[in-house]
Amino acid sequence: MVQHSTRSIDRVMAAIADPTRRAILERLARGPARISDIAEPFPMSLTGFCKHVRVLERARLVRRTRRGRENTLELSPEPLRAVADWVLNYEHFWNERLDRLESFFAKEREKEKPR
Amino acid sequence: MVQHSTRSIDRVMAAIADPTRRAILERLARGPARISDIAEPFPMSLTGFCKHVRVLERARLVRRTRRGRENTLELSPEPLRAVADWVLNYEHFWNERLDRLESFFAKEREKEKPR
Repeated sequence: MVQHSTRSIDRVMAAIADPTRRAILERLARGPARISDIAEPFPMSLTGFCKHVRVLERARLVRRTRRGRENTLELSPEPLRAVADWVLNYEHFWNERLDRLESFFAKEREKEKPR
Repeated sequence: MVQHSTRSIDRVMAAIADPTRRAILERLARGPARISDIAEPFPMSLTGFCKHVRVLERARLVRRTRRGRENTLELSPEPLRAVADWVLNYEHFWNERLDRLESFFAKEREKEKPR
């Protein structure tokens, strides 16, 4: 029941728990880019930025390739699928709540009907 | 662009990155339960277990209520919705890959057709 803590999904969830790392993934969703270009808008040192990149690499969420003199990053979205699968197990809770709200408003409308 | 790291979604993602905490949520998806009953199958001290519960409480994923002499936990799945919303932005990447596979097999079937 309790799995070992270094499983892939644990690493992926820990990786996306950080807003900088989510922003990197969001940037790469628009296409591959050079590390220095991705780093530019972030208010941190390139060293600090590269630590975030390494966390994403270990979670297999990005791939690094060398093009000419610079490293290029590419999104590797596949591991996010396990997160989606897990979290969507809870989707029916929101849907049930929506169903209850919907039936509440349906009853309210019924009450307001002229007789 | 870069948000502060104590945002709700960061806490929620960090909370679900641990397999023990995911297992607690999975248990509570079947209904509320007493803390000692939920703790029982986990190979750890009650103190260690309660630390995990506090992480889930801070992420607002569980609610604790006092019933008689014991604390009862209840699932509060609403914060998971933000995780689902974020991760489903990447769904089209998997779907595109499936579409490409599908069209590959469609072409293969076309080739095999008797003329």
